[in-house]
Amino acid sequence: MGITSQLIKFTTTDVPEEAAAMMRLSLFDWAACGIAGASEAEFAPFKRAQMVEDGPAQVFGGGQAGAAVAALVNGTLSHALDYDDTHFAHIGHPSVAVLPATLALAETLGTALTDAVDAATVGVEASILVGQWLGRDHYQIGYHQTATAGAFGATLAAARLLGLDKSQIRHALGLCASMASGLKSQFGTMGKPLNAGLAARTGVEAALWAQAGMTAAEDGLAGPLGFGETHHGRAEPVKMPRKEWAISTISHKYHACCHGLHATLEALAEVDAETDRIEAIRIRTHPRWMSVCNIAAPKTGLEAKFSYTQVTAMALSGHATASIGNFNDTLARDPALKALRERVEVVEDDTLTETQSQVTLTLTSGEVRRHRHDLLAPMSLETRSVKLRDKVMALLGETRGAQLWEAAIGQDLESLTGCFAGA
Amino acid sequence: MGITSQLIKFTTTDVPEEAAAMMRLSLFDWAACGIAGASEAEFAPFKRAQMVEDGPAQVFGGGQAGAAVAALVNGTLSHALDYDDTHFAHIGHPSVAVLPATLALAETLGTALTDAVDAATVGVEASILVGQWLGRDHYQIGYHQTATAGAFGATLAAARLLGLDKSQIRHALGLCASMASGLKSQFGTMGKPLNAGLAARTGVEAALWAQAGMTAAEDGLAGPLGFGETHHGRAEPVKMPRKEWAISTISHKYHACCHGLHATLEALAEVDAETDRIEAIRIRTHPRWMSVCNIAAPKTGLEAKFSYTQVTAMALSGHATASIGNFNDTLARDPALKALRERVEVVEDDTLTETQSQVTLTLTSGEVRRHRHDLLAPMSLETRSVKLRDKVMALLGETRGAQLWEAAIGQDLESLTGCFAGA
Repeated sequence: MGITSQLIKFTTTDVPEEAAAMMRLSLFDWAACGIAGASEAEFAPFKRAQMVEDGPAQVFGGGQAGAAVAALVNGTLSHALDYDDTHFAHIGHPSVAVLPATLALAETLGTALTDAVDAATVGVEASILVGQWLGRDHYQIGYHQTATAGAFGATLAAARLLGLDKSQIRHALGLCASMASGLKSQFGTMGKPLNAGLAARTGVEAALWAQAGMTAAEDGLAGPLGFGETHHGRAEPVKMPRKEWAISTISHKYHACCHGLHATLEALAEVDAETDRIEAIRIRTHPRWMSVCNIAAPKTGLEAKFSYTQVTAMALSGHATASIGNFNDTLARDPALKALRERVEVVEDDTLTETQSQVTLTLTSGEVRRHRHDLLAPMSLETRSVKLRDKVMALLGETRGAQLWEAAIGQDLESLTGCFAGA
Repeated sequence: MGITSQLIKFTTTDVPEEAAAMMRLSLFDWAACGIAGASEAEFAPFKRAQMVEDGPAQVFGGGQAGAAVAALVNGTLSHALDYDDTHFAHIGHPSVAVLPATLALAETLGTALTDAVDAATVGVEASILVGQWLGRDHYQIGYHQTATAGAFGATLAAARLLGLDKSQIRHALGLCASMASGLKSQFGTMGKPLNAGLAARTGVEAALWAQAGMTAAEDGLAGPLGFGETHHGRAEPVKMPRKEWAISTISHKYHACCHGLHATLEALAEVDAETDRIEAIRIRTHPRWMSVCNIAAPKTGLEAKFSYTQVTAMALSGHATASIGNFNDTLARDPALKALRERVEVVEDDTLTETQSQVTLTLTSGEVRRHRHDLLAPMSLETRSVKLRDKVMALLGETRGAQLWEAAIGQDLESLTGCFAGA
């Protein structure tokens, strides 16, 4: 069966408990990123320009809007910090496209949270599989897969919430094929998070417009002159649902710094030694990262986000690397951390993959300890939830973090979106 | 100078009187298409779904909305009949992307009509040149150039109206590069006119968001991983402004039927003979049209739109082919027209181009008359305006047509948009 027919059928599939549980964790993580992202002052005028119409959907940082506007703004704000989840097979961030569309529409429709989570799970899974179907070329040539594949996932989630029939879902996917867009050349600009917001809005609009009777290409995604053909898609074989859902291998960010530092930080989390007992730290990492995040003597908080020595010193000294606030100029110049940094050596090692790191500690006693980590190593839901709660507490503070956690695992959509306003 | 720098500079260029005069004709034509298109019942639910927010911009068929919504709805409705202007070098319809953006934003800003026309002229010219810069491959592979190149034109027009500075225009074009989209596979569905509406909205949003401080790729159109590189653009050399503006060779549709019939209908317009004096009519046309619009004995109004014999009989008998209403089942079955149809012979002729036709009349007296037409033949503004007025009168009726004409050549933006509500 072609991917479009598979997607249509998949829209109403039963969602396994395990997949939905993972989605709840991503929901918690995503909402925290959105609440924190809403404080980024540079996005305030953009948000203000959208908030002309009152509506049922809660917007990060306060205010309410219609579903399409809320999806656009929330998608953008939740990706502003680039601290949300990733899927390496999809080559993108699944939640920032799918969740804003799902929640904004769910609020408009009065959907129960459990059903909204199921719709989002289907949407995220679909976006990962559409990403795999498009393949590497699509990303390599310059498309921002978070936005392009993400728009199809958002469309499917919205279609499920609206209860569209098969023909309407087909038209919704066809409309999405004409709207899905976003370039990788936006990386490093505000256009990157905007791409996520646009994908979320596309999902809401494609589904609502199909419901309103708009027709579109019979197979806009995979048919002749379709999205795949025009956008360098490889039409890699995919099958859905998979026995083990792709969402189960989603990656969360637990540290507010460059992804190249994360495997090292995970390895360092296993270290159990006071800093004054440590004589030397050697970090082995994939060669690619040496030019990306190896600033030896950072002077600013921004430089600290790209520094093995600084994050190592922070982690060993108990400064939470999950906290965005800890990547500041003061800590970058802290004498104790600077002293510790000088004991860190960073070595490239091409026997490691990009997701692996090895940390070797030499203690003053002469003892040598090794810790390794691979970001792709399986992690239980329980471990993830502990790590995500630590992250969110660091991001939002204990009270708001705990409140968001209760809402994200709860039954009530309004309790969850009630947290979006933030402080 | 690269195309992006050229576009930025071109935004504030002085608009020649001749180019603006042509834009006024297209404005008149476009508004008539929008007013007529608003009666297409199948688009009503889509329009209704957008009209949740009141605003300053008039929407075709009645109602007001914010600039982005009005651009979206007006762009869609004005392309619903596919009766709006075309540019063959651009391979698309320039007005339906640029004018909805320009007018909706002009109403929001309280711009004078003359300045709005200048902005639209710059936008249309830019969209044609971006279309040429993208080249044939872009269209052939499956992109709907009306929407893709059109979005850049709409962005430039909006940027001019807002008075953005050079850096903001650069960001607006960069944002547009991430949003411009639309597939040719939508042809034959409601997704085709929607593409035009989306391009118009993109123009409004890209400019407004850049004004609100959103940043984007340094050269989203022509730079590395830019729109051109990712969307099969050929980066054909273009230079702006041209000595003779490209807008001067825009084509208008004067007949509510397949474009393949238009050259023949123009040739027939020169015929001066009563039908009972005509013994035989021979039509020579490019071979490509034989499989497109040569239904010999049409039975319905829809089939009549693709029939040389029927439109020839209609034209010779004085049934206006500019009137959408004349393509109906009753006229398709009219005995007098059927009798005349039998005297029409259609012959393919590969010495003619796709835009040429030759009509040979044999009169009962034995006299033979030949009439030729090429759609690309130069036409004076005066001749165009007479033909367009005939078209619009047929489309909207004498009173509304005359009122729209006065408004389109006038000074007052509100008088023009006051016509949008229609009946």
